[in-house]
Amino acid sequence: MINLEAIHHMSGFNYCYPLSKDTLRLRLRTKKNNVDIVTVVYQNVYLHTIDSLKYEAMEKVCSDKYFDYFEKDIFVKEGYFKYYFKLEAEKDIYYCQDGFLDELSEKNYFYYSEAHESNVFNLPQWAKGLAIYQIFIDRFLDGDASNNPANTKSWGEAPDRNTYFGGDFLGIIYKLDYIKSLGMSAIYLSPVHPSPNYHKYDISDYEVIEEYFGGKEKLIELVQKAHKTGLKIILDGVFNHCSIKHIFFQDLLEKQEKSNYVTWFKLHSFPVSLEKGNYDSFGNLVPTMPKFNTSNSEVINYLTNIAAQWTEELDIDGWRLDVGDELSHEFLRTFREKIKAVKADAVIIGESWNISSRFMLGNEFDTLTNYKNRELLFQLVDQKISVKEYIDCIYSIQMQYKSVAIPYLLNLIGSHDTIRIASYYKDYKKWLFAFSLALFLEGGFVLYYGDEKRVEGLEDPDNRRAMNWNVETDKTIQKILQIRQSTEFCKGNFNIEKQYKNCIVITRDSLEGKIRFIGNLQEESLDIEYDNQNILLRSKEDFTNTLRTFDFIIYKI
Amino acid sequence: MINLEAIHHMSGFNYCYPLSKDTLRLRLRTKKNNVDIVTVVYQNVYLHTIDSLKYEAMEKVCSDKYFDYFEKDIFVKEGYFKYYFKLEAEKDIYYCQDGFLDELSEKNYFYYSEAHESNVFNLPQWAKGLAIYQIFIDRFLDGDASNNPANTKSWGEAPDRNTYFGGDFLGIIYKLDYIKSLGMSAIYLSPVHPSPNYHKYDISDYEVIEEYFGGKEKLIELVQKAHKTGLKIILDGVFNHCSIKHIFFQDLLEKQEKSNYVTWFKLHSFPVSLEKGNYDSFGNLVPTMPKFNTSNSEVINYLTNIAAQWTEELDIDGWRLDVGDELSHEFLRTFREKIKAVKADAVIIGESWNISSRFMLGNEFDTLTNYKNRELLFQLVDQKISVKEYIDCIYSIQMQYKSVAIPYLLNLIGSHDTIRIASYYKDYKKWLFAFSLALFLEGGFVLYYGDEKRVEGLEDPDNRRAMNWNVETDKTIQKILQIRQSTEFCKGNFNIEKQYKNCIVITRDSLEGKIRFIGNLQEESLDIEYDNQNILLRSKEDFTNTLRTFDFIIYKI
Repeated sequence: MINLEAIHHMSGFNYCYPLSKDTLRLRLRTKKNNVDIVTVVYQNVYLHTIDSLKYEAMEKVCSDKYFDYFEKDIFVKEGYFKYYFKLEAEKDIYYCQDGFLDELSEKNYFYYSEAHESNVFNLPQWAKGLAIYQIFIDRFLDGDASNNPANTKSWGEAPDRNTYFGGDFLGIIYKLDYIKSLGMSAIYLSPVHPSPNYHKYDISDYEVIEEYFGGKEKLIELVQKAHKTGLKIILDGVFNHCSIKHIFFQDLLEKQEKSNYVTWFKLHSFPVSLEKGNYDSFGNLVPTMPKFNTSNSEVINYLTNIAAQWTEELDIDGWRLDVGDELSHEFLRTFREKIKAVKADAVIIGESWNISSRFMLGNEFDTLTNYKNRELLFQLVDQKISVKEYIDCIYSIQMQYKSVAIPYLLNLIGSHDTIRIASYYKDYKKWLFAFSLALFLEGGFVLYYGDEKRVEGLEDPDNRRAMNWNVETDKTIQKILQIRQSTEFCKGNFNIEKQYKNCIVITRDSLEGKIRFIGNLQEESLDIEYDNQNILLRSKEDFTNTLRTFDFIIYKI
Repeated sequence: MINLEAIHHMSGFNYCYPLSKDTLRLRLRTKKNNVDIVTVVYQNVYLHTIDSLKYEAMEKVCSDKYFDYFEKDIFVKEGYFKYYFKLEAEKDIYYCQDGFLDELSEKNYFYYSEAHESNVFNLPQWAKGLAIYQIFIDRFLDGDASNNPANTKSWGEAPDRNTYFGGDFLGIIYKLDYIKSLGMSAIYLSPVHPSPNYHKYDISDYEVIEEYFGGKEKLIELVQKAHKTGLKIILDGVFNHCSIKHIFFQDLLEKQEKSNYVTWFKLHSFPVSLEKGNYDSFGNLVPTMPKFNTSNSEVINYLTNIAAQWTEELDIDGWRLDVGDELSHEFLRTFREKIKAVKADAVIIGESWNISSRFMLGNEFDTLTNYKNRELLFQLVDQKISVKEYIDCIYSIQMQYKSVAIPYLLNLIGSHDTIRIASYYKDYKKWLFAFSLALFLEGGFVLYYGDEKRVEGLEDPDNRRAMNWNVETDKTIQKILQIRQSTEFCKGNFNIEKQYKNCIVITRDSLEGKIRFIGNLQEESLDIEYDNQNILLRSKEDFTNTLRTFDFIIYKI
């Protein structure tokens, strides 16, 4: 018996969207293991004869705990789509706009009245499965001591929440080859505009580049040299809030009701006062960082114009939007429009800690930080959830998005806002397992500087230590990163195999054929078979066919 | 046992959206009669203590064949929302971003990270439950014979697909009091720009007003006089396609590849030719009406600027968008922005024959033509579906939209694109029943000129006959329209009662208290009780307490 209530489709959003003017991708959800065969039946809206109907079997693309998901791309040259689903059961059921019917007429069909070019989710191809190196500028490398602010700490001292260490653009330029050798394709920099703080997440002037970091000329040099090295540059766009030192907020403090910037912020009452903090601020409670009113078109225009200008002037390749999911949809649509007008294949990454489907329809974010996957990974390695549960959750997250965007979602094992993975997993075996598995997941990957060297760090400020260049990069991680890049498996198909008990088996299509990761999360050892010739990597060199707990192996098949 | 697979929520779209900066409306769907009590538990995103959690019981707002729908508005002053649903069962179930859990932490909650003013679906209050009179200008009344084209037909002749009858703006001015007396609050006019055809749905020049109708001055006079009479004016915006006579298309035919308008249309090949019709055209097959490429920003700007200009210059109150669901989302967003900038409470109505949720998120259409309801009504009165099935379908359609928009959806019993209801229901009793019930449904109402006089008409061109002013307006319909307007019940709550077998019972909140419609669709008679004093209307005067089939009664309770 078909569970009708479990069946889901919508003529829009992540269940129906154009891939081009003539092709529509459809998704259908059914109860898990409940429906074997689904056919989509479709036609040009303006054709009315049964013999012009087309039939396509849908493919089951994945399952989670409760549901199976089917997808199919359908083609109508003229771009006018009407369709319904035929679910095979003892008695076939037709699922259409009007529910579940035994027989139906074309008025009952689902309609996607016309596919438009401008409604296609255009993603920058280069960002598919992208490996990004995240640099906290002040803490990476001090290339030029002459531009340091007074009272910088000595490299290696314990960080506090206020003090500079002196890292700068030149330091990054010195390390471009290092970053490239890690198998990275892009660098994402912490904010580059002046601010009262070392981290620059409270910007006081969007129109210039921080001189402590080397100023505009040095940043341009960095971008140019990065491009020569084969690295894209992504800036951190902090448009949710600014510093109280920003001239607009200063103007407001001074002129109060008479300021031109009364509507630029979200004020609670007058007089606006730093002591009272009577305005919306970052995180609901950081009065030094007043929030912009990103519903206001003047604010939208000012900030998006600046971002577009910098995109052009610096020749950068994209933006990571800080607190991305608190920006208004109007801001984000305008931002995308203006940035893509300057550079069509710039990438737009939203910082988000949760499911954020409403920003991922195709005209706001290209992708986002998949912190949900990080949580799941840690639960898996902590053995709080089984491999089966883990896989269900991975797919459940994916299915909240359009499938075209899934290979772009950005995995991460840590950032400047989390405890570092080396502090979370003191045990090397677990650290390596979690890190390596993360690199094999579907999606891009953001590597927080130093994680490759197993740098430790608790919550802020400890997770922002000055980079310890004396520590060696972990060889296994470096190798996987290089395999990831050289074989481009991150752009190929991703498959989780289900033949082993509590082991995770991932197969990825690469330039050099299929590459498989097998990791053992069982208490017991696991004997596996593979051709020794095809081995790319083992978590330890001292085993052959037996994986103990937290061992993994990577080989070509 | 709770049917988990039937449960549905999304943090966006029609299941979660801001009503203001601090209030979020949530919807939850469950299997029908499966869950009695649902509580939404919520908090400011940035609060983390259990004692700041708030609990609200959700209200069951309606049900359809398969599902119950619950809704609740939740309030967080600062606008940052996280929440989950508690479903009461033998063992409570928590429904959250990560599915169904027995226990959960705040990472699992649903997030609506921030509510923004600019993301509120602002609907023009005056258009709630609006009664609109649809006028086909050439066929309504010839007020000024001097502006008629040559060879107009005599008023009353059978229409063909080409010939003018001479109707004009002055004719409408003469009848403003008549329209107002029908209980209407707005007039929607067929297109007013020049075109090679009487119907003007293939516009050759958007920049002027048709002289055959009286030109710009007469239209301005009409708008002004309508406003004085208390009638709003809505124009028909035909932006999906134009006439081959339009100068841009003429330019293309002449200069071919060298024309500036190559990207304005959707060309298949060169040379573009009328004979080959090698370009997208209206309805996939009307080469005299080439489709605009509404993905093109030049096209978007040209057409939306003109629409905004006319909105201002003519002082009109809204637009009905022809073939609305084939316009690109980008076109529609820009259109809304520009029109609302000129007149904040202008209404934007999309022509749509199907479920069109993707255009109803709040930044494109305000409302649309609910042709689906018309189909259902006819099925009900034709006794092809029961009252129970009818009610299920009504709610199923409603639940495809945000609930704030439901009272704005426009019911209709016919238009210039359908057979007239008087031809569909030759039987007066059925005609009256269908018409009256339609006026009691939730939503606005578009009355096609002449339907109030039981004018007949088969498909185009017969449904566009010159208005027969000698026929009397149906007294019962006129009375219901007046009750509808004077008591404003169309703005109040709408309730379908379920106590009778195959009778339909609708109760509406009005300025004068509750007003009830009871209509009998049983084969048998139905005895009902009511206070004679409270009777507003009976379908026939010759009954007291017994409703025969297709009888109905309207009374105050």
